[in-house]
Amino acid sequence: MDIRSFNPPIRTLMGPGPSDVHPRILEALARPTIGHLDPAFIELMDELKVLLQYAFQTENALTMPVSAPGSAGMETCFVNLVEPGDKVIVCQNGVFGGRMKENVERCGGVPVLVEDPWGTAIDAGKLEEALKAHTDAKIVAMVHAETSTGAQSDVAALVKLAHAHGCLTIVDTVTSLGGTPVKVDEWGIDAIYSGSQKCLSCTPGLSPVSFNERALEKIRNRRTKVQSWFMDLNLVMGYWGTGTKRAYHHTAPINTLYALHEALVILKEEGLENAWARHRKNHLALRAGLEAMGLSFVVKEADRLPQLNAVTIPAGVDDAAVRSRLLKEYNLEIGAGLGALAGKVWRIGLMGHASRAENILLCIGALESILGDMGAEIKRGVALPAMQKALA
Amino acid sequence: MDIRSFNPPIRTLMGPGPSDVHPRILEALARPTIGHLDPAFIELMDELKVLLQYAFQTENALTMPVSAPGSAGMETCFVNLVEPGDKVIVCQNGVFGGRMKENVERCGGVPVLVEDPWGTAIDAGKLEEALKAHTDAKIVAMVHAETSTGAQSDVAALVKLAHAHGCLTIVDTVTSLGGTPVKVDEWGIDAIYSGSQKCLSCTPGLSPVSFNERALEKIRNRRTKVQSWFMDLNLVMGYWGTGTKRAYHHTAPINTLYALHEALVILKEEGLENAWARHRKNHLALRAGLEAMGLSFVVKEADRLPQLNAVTIPAGVDDAAVRSRLLKEYNLEIGAGLGALAGKVWRIGLMGHASRAENILLCIGALESILGDMGAEIKRGVALPAMQKALA
Repeated sequence: MDIRSFNPPIRTLMGPGPSDVHPRILEALARPTIGHLDPAFIELMDELKVLLQYAFQTENALTMPVSAPGSAGMETCFVNLVEPGDKVIVCQNGVFGGRMKENVERCGGVPVLVEDPWGTAIDAGKLEEALKAHTDAKIVAMVHAETSTGAQSDVAALVKLAHAHGCLTIVDTVTSLGGTPVKVDEWGIDAIYSGSQKCLSCTPGLSPVSFNERALEKIRNRRTKVQSWFMDLNLVMGYWGTGTKRAYHHTAPINTLYALHEALVILKEEGLENAWARHRKNHLALRAGLEAMGLSFVVKEADRLPQLNAVTIPAGVDDAAVRSRLLKEYNLEIGAGLGALAGKVWRIGLMGHASRAENILLCIGALESILGDMGAEIKRGVALPAMQKALA
Repeated sequence: MDIRSFNPPIRTLMGPGPSDVHPRILEALARPTIGHLDPAFIELMDELKVLLQYAFQTENALTMPVSAPGSAGMETCFVNLVEPGDKVIVCQNGVFGGRMKENVERCGGVPVLVEDPWGTAIDAGKLEEALKAHTDAKIVAMVHAETSTGAQSDVAALVKLAHAHGCLTIVDTVTSLGGTPVKVDEWGIDAIYSGSQKCLSCTPGLSPVSFNERALEKIRNRRTKVQSWFMDLNLVMGYWGTGTKRAYHHTAPINTLYALHEALVILKEEGLENAWARHRKNHLALRAGLEAMGLSFVVKEADRLPQLNAVTIPAGVDDAAVRSRLLKEYNLEIGAGLGALAGKVWRIGLMGHASRAENILLCIGALESILGDMGAEIKRGVALPAMQKALA
């Protein structure tokens, strides 16, 4: 097998993540590697904490990136907070709630599932019922922005409910951070995780997390050791901690941390509120175009994520064939449906650096062209003007 | 806090890892990100498996990089192979054996420690005694190249012993892979993990692993679920597996995988045997220089790792002050001692791209200059000629 250097095709990434990475971030990624205990690297770590505190809108001291993808960030929250026998209420309205339940079980916890239909937000009434029925529950886990459906839930209200019943909260913001408001301190979130490769537009491989004092209190008072050595926050804190002396725990992914730093500097330059507004505006433009064409959204208007648009695949249209042609003819990636929505929806991401007018135009134009060519029943010639009007 | 783009200092990395990253690898890292289910990315994954099979000298189908640092590769081996109640013999002759013991305990296993002094190889006789005393042991875990001491153990012999007593083996080759012979199939290693940032000279953040059929058999017959969702090989295989359809598990660290691919292409171009010979030759040159200067090695000659040289800090010399001056005056990083050897030794790495004549010259010259300036009792003016002679 003759294997040579890999030169990737140049794609436009409008799936559910990774999103288009800003050239500044790719450039930062390639800067010379230094040691993970180098004084210059310790400074970078300190800055990263401050930048992540800004992104998460928190003053939590324990705010840092886990050295692995979002799934490991999720697991870091569960293995540290859930002890064997702990009852955990998991709100499930998509794939990632299901993954949370798996995590609870693997930690020896007892999951109580509160289910909502895929594509809808989490129903606060159902959560309240569950909290009343399970007064011994210790934690409520929820997904802010369900990447599998494009639905957004009212985390502020759900966390308030959980606290009223004496529960801690674990919140998944993998797809929301940087794209829609995430306010850790204002909303009172106890443990939160996200991903680097969605609205932060960094390369994949890191999972920012943050824990408040109440979460740390539970971790400090554990009866059992955290089952994961790699994710044990008691150990990780020795390296990412606030002390002047950093103890070696694992070798940090130096260059990917350069990239996350640059991604967060870019976010700070733009300003969180401006980033949220940009995601919202571009979502409305994409929506105008898609709806003018005759496509419809899966999620009802009030619960839609601006950065992840799930649209119903028109009847009779071959899902895979369309995505394959988008990729081959336009180098454009959009996402397939996941789990219960596989084959039924496309997921169009407008995340971070990918949330730009030129991307919307490409997506709408390419979809119209290919769907039209395949004989799908769509309206032609109206999508781009509708998009243009929404952008104006 | 005014935080701007981070521009790292330009270091020469001669510590215990990360090592100097080859410019080709940094350049590969910065190539445009594509999706983790992109057909082009699936091709990259297939090539990565073939390249890793070459590096590990194995035909194991399950050979892939874990999407996290070496510590997570270690944990992947333990959480998948160790079930609650399993007795695991852990050979400890440095920091990383201790970490293995921690892993066994956190999996609910029963560790039996076979200890050897730090800086020595694992004693096969002691292992045999332990195997005879613990006939119910199921696994033997060992570190091939102890990064904390620079000692190398005879894995081929130890694995043979373990097998003779019906045990599976888990072998840590974080520091050895690419620097000294690692022969998975010939030696019969059942589960192995390594790191990207040592003798492969890739950036940190990935852990190549490989499992043979016997290891997979044990995993398939587990009575309990793997406690980690992120590291569960049953799930990871759905993505890295051999089938044509790849199921989403987690978002792979795309760009770091570009880098690993390039690192392995470079290794293949050089040839494993040539890479081993280069590490050996450069070690002898470094050794000649250091010994001429009057410094002495911690590990006895037969057990020394060519890529990680632990030398005793001369009496009266301020460890931290020397390392700090090397960094400030020459941008040269060497490693401090770890665990029982903290403050007593320096660890000088000659790993991968860092194993070059110019690095040896820099290290010897800088050490001679700074130690001399600090009044340490060393011989001056003889190290460089000795090094030169060894290189000739």
